[in-house]
Amino acid sequence: MTEDGFQPSGVVTLLSDFGLTDPYVGVMKGVMLSAEPQLELIDLTHGVPPQAIAVGAWHLLQSWPRFPAGTVHVVVVDPGVGSGRRILLAEQAGHLFLAPDNGVLDPALEEGATVRVLDVERFALPNASRTFHGRDVFSPAAAALAAGLPPDEAGEVTEDWVHLELPTPEVAEDGVIHAAVLYADRFGNLVTMVAAEALGGAASWTVEVGGESMPLVGTYAEVSAGELLALVGSGGTVEVSLRDGDAAKRLGVEAGGAVVLRPDA
Amino acid sequence: MTEDGFQPSGVVTLLSDFGLTDPYVGVMKGVMLSAEPQLELIDLTHGVPPQAIAVGAWHLLQSWPRFPAGTVHVVVVDPGVGSGRRILLAEQAGHLFLAPDNGVLDPALEEGATVRVLDVERFALPNASRTFHGRDVFSPAAAALAAGLPPDEAGEVTEDWVHLELPTPEVAEDGVIHAAVLYADRFGNLVTMVAAEALGGAASWTVEVGGESMPLVGTYAEVSAGELLALVGSGGTVEVSLRDGDAAKRLGVEAGGAVVLRPDA
Amino acid sequence: MTEDGFQPSGVVTLLSDFGLTDPYVGVMKGVMLSAEPQLELIDLTHGVPPQAIAVGAWHLLQSWPRFPAGTVHVVVVDPGVGSGRRILLAEQAGHLFLAPDNGVLDPALEEGATVRVLDVERFALPNASRTFHGRDVFSPAAAALAAGLPPDEAGEVTEDWVHLELPTPEVAEDGVIHAAVLYADRFGNLVTMVAAEALGGAASWTVEVGGESMPLVGTYAEVSAGELLALVGSGGTVEVSLRDGDAAKRLGVEAGGAVVLRPDA
Repeated sequence: MTEDGFQPSGVVTLLSDFGLTDPYVGVMKGVMLSAEPQLELIDLTHGVPPQAIAVGAWHLLQSWPRFPAGTVHVVVVDPGVGSGRRILLAEQAGHLFLAPDNGVLDPALEEGATVRVLDVERFALPNASRTFHGRDVFSPAAAALAAGLPPDEAGEVTEDWVHLELPTPEVAEDGVIHAAVLYADRFGNLVTMVAAEALGGAASWTVEVGGESMPLVGTYAEVSAGELLALVGSGGTVEVSLRDGDAAKRLGVEAGGAVVLRPDA
Repeated sequence: MTEDGFQPSGVVTLLSDFGLTDPYVGVMKGVMLSAEPQLELIDLTHGVPPQAIAVGAWHLLQSWPRFPAGTVHVVVVDPGVGSGRRILLAEQAGHLFLAPDNGVLDPALEEGATVRVLDVERFALPNASRTFHGRDVFSPAAAALAAGLPPDEAGEVTEDWVHLELPTPEVAEDGVIHAAVLYADRFGNLVTMVAAEALGGAASWTVEVGGESMPLVGTYAEVSAGELLALVGSGGTVEVSLRDGDAAKRLGVEAGGAVVLRPDA
Repeated sequence: MTEDGFQPSGVVTLLSDFGLTDPYVGVMKGVMLSAEPQLELIDLTHGVPPQAIAVGAWHLLQSWPRFPAGTVHVVVVDPGVGSGRRILLAEQAGHLFLAPDNGVLDPALEEGATVRVLDVERFALPNASRTFHGRDVFSPAAAALAAGLPPDEAGEVTEDWVHLELPTPEVAEDGVIHAAVLYADRFGNLVTMVAAEALGGAASWTVEVGGESMPLVGTYAEVSAGELLALVGSGGTVEVSLRDGDAAKRLGVEAGGAVVLRPDA
């Protein structure tokens, strides 16, 4: 156990925009298993849209607390690969995180996190490429940390990293909440950052998006098949859905689209 | 080993319509590993079309016997999540199954299966969401069962669950078989439920679909590249294929399309 | 350890054109785990375009050396399944390879590789299908080999197998390199087989593809967002990219498209 309490469980998660069509993810796993054959490698998702830092940040924020203490989370949404951007190694609540210093890690960091700048030279594979640090830097570093290398030997502490503001909703004077679609999921649910806690000001709400209005309900079953609805989704924030259908397609709305929540009179 | 013979192997399979674009599947794995770090988590597929219960049922029916005894199969094709629908826990042939009570499990159940209604309260995570029982109910229950919790402590036996009729072929008086496309696979093969055993009535057959006729053959190599064919596929039922191509695209046929098998004179 | 030095690590990689929409890959894993519950099963990728032997060959060539010695690599890009094509079992550098004898394995084979013809009868499951040897032949053979069956008990050595020429670049008398796009990856990068070593003849190069010209640079950061570039990618060969975008879409170029590299004066 390190000073901050990291005790490796052998679990490593991978979150990237690499997709699964190419062998990029498989090769990262090969590098990790070559160093440490006993690791348990779990794909968080590789479906982040290419270079969509905010989506990656949101997925990380939502997902990491579901894993056991001792997990190393590897985040490679990295449009700046090959430039001078740094790689961060963070530690909080018994978890470690490796991510490029481009904001993708920032929203997940909590009070008390220790953030280090990874000593890239220490971990880079011989003949490391300038375009695939996921394979040549992140993977060997993750394997070493998951095998017990103390984080304080992997880089110097920093207080200074790239911050990222996710599209936080704004509450107008009349109580109306103005938000944006963060992304549409596989089912066409339009996910916002309006937290359940922000809905305390009214007993019921009407949600407007893409020129249509719909009620905020507790569960899909409260509307009929083919009807639009909004509800607090599994991430604890408001999502716009179509019962037994795809709201994104029906409404023609995608990431960035406006969502207005109006307290009912 | 339980009374019915379930002895956990530590293998858990996941079958869902969640896709891999979002971290839903990854998060389910995090919840399971948080409870039981030693599980072996295998994706059966997450490519079931959204809420396509019949396709999920077919995939489960075809796939579960390929896994070792002691496997827990988690099936989350669950359009009724958040409604009052029950969750079933079934046991047969030394395997366990967790699935919503919407028919997705029914076709896989064999004579002698023991079916229970899962005690959701026992397993639900604190603050369980109403839209993501895969994470908040199925995953903790699967982890507990895969770790050895006896199934009879997880719910009461029932004789009453939702049944599902897959699109069974009909044989007309003249021996002609009228079937339907169950789904098109990644290669554009049009999969039907016409079993090899149903083809005993004639030495050779002609298959009609999408306005075209083709022979029933033994293997792809019996026709030339670019030609249509039908054969008994890997699931033991008739599939319509295009040699070195995509039959679904070529014929413009998808799930539900009519397939007629005519015995040759 | 066998005569040639194969000592199983328990790691098995899977490379195929099966995609992840259907349960084909999951079922292969079930067959392997039924035989050997302790295997570590790693997806290299299943996104090879259907029956695209050259793409599969390239991915294998690039990926296998990243895995630990003792790995069994299972390659199923197999348009000839059900015909008389043979299955090869190769051994080199402490790795094993199983692949149909259609060329997909050939480019990865190095001087000194031992190639055998798999004894299919020995491994085929009862009632093996004629369309899914991935499940019915490759998986049981891979499990047996990964569990320690000596390769020399699995088939007879051969010196004769199907060779495959990947689209090697040609260098004209004036030093101009004429190449082709091998495939476009998830990011829209157009991957060629022009190796970094082929670029020694000039200090700088201009690359022409799809009617546009772009510089060969060292890293993405050397051009502005929205500009085309070429660089030596993570596989050690020249790729054409669009900074923060998708070069394949922008140029309207796909696999087979011409790429010309011209030494700057």
